[in-house]
Amino acid sequence: MPAHPTVIRPEAHAVFSPAGMGKSTLFTSSRVLVGVNAFEPGQAHALHAHAGMDKVYHVVAGEGQFLLEGGAQAMRAGDLLVAPADVPHGVRNTGTGRLVVLAILAPVPGGSSA
Amino acid sequence: MPAHPTVIRPEAHAVFSPAGMGKSTLFTSSRVLVGVNAFEPGQAHALHAHAGMDKVYHVVAGEGQFLLEGGAQAMRAGDLLVAPADVPHGVRNTGTGRLVVLAILAPVPGGSSA
Repeated sequence: MPAHPTVIRPEAHAVFSPAGMGKSTLFTSSRVLVGVNAFEPGQAHALHAHAGMDKVYHVVAGEGQFLLEGGAQAMRAGDLLVAPADVPHGVRNTGTGRLVVLAILAPVPGGSSA
Repeated sequence: MPAHPTVIRPEAHAVFSPAGMGKSTLFTSSRVLVGVNAFEPGQAHALHAHAGMDKVYHVVAGEGQFLLEGGAQAMRAGDLLVAPADVPHGVRNTGTGRLVVLAILAPVPGGSSA
């Protein structure tokens, strides 16, 4: 976490894993976590929900689906989705290339500064 | 605020004003405010700081500068900057086209649900 703000290209911080969705953290405080979720083709983050935390997704590169209770919505670079607290959500890379999604959680899991 | 999450193109919600930076809100709760800041060429949001709130900027379209204490940093679509609580920050459209920036504040100004 830089003492002085620095311009970041989120895709440069994507970490991919053959085992499943890769996660990396760009910034965290007690108030917000800014992370990058990285998906190889076919990988997914299963439907889940966060109690007391809102999540903002912003698609950085690639295309896929937002998983939602009752269905899925197509997404591509530039799309944004807010999953309010307790609303089930997930991501699936249905494209042929890599998918990179900015994931912002407020407040942070556990509520502690890191 | 939709009861069910909906995919949003932030640039479609940009509101420009001849008087200065345009602001629109995509989502708000007690935890987070997701907004769009829109700048005509030459417009700026002067250096300012938020007590107890972190701000995440993600540039959606255009190019310009992030204003920071002691200087400025060039930015363009896809760039991200986190201004932690109490750190002065701002935006200036130094380009020839419109500048659209996603601005996420956590928690929200006033700390109340809206």
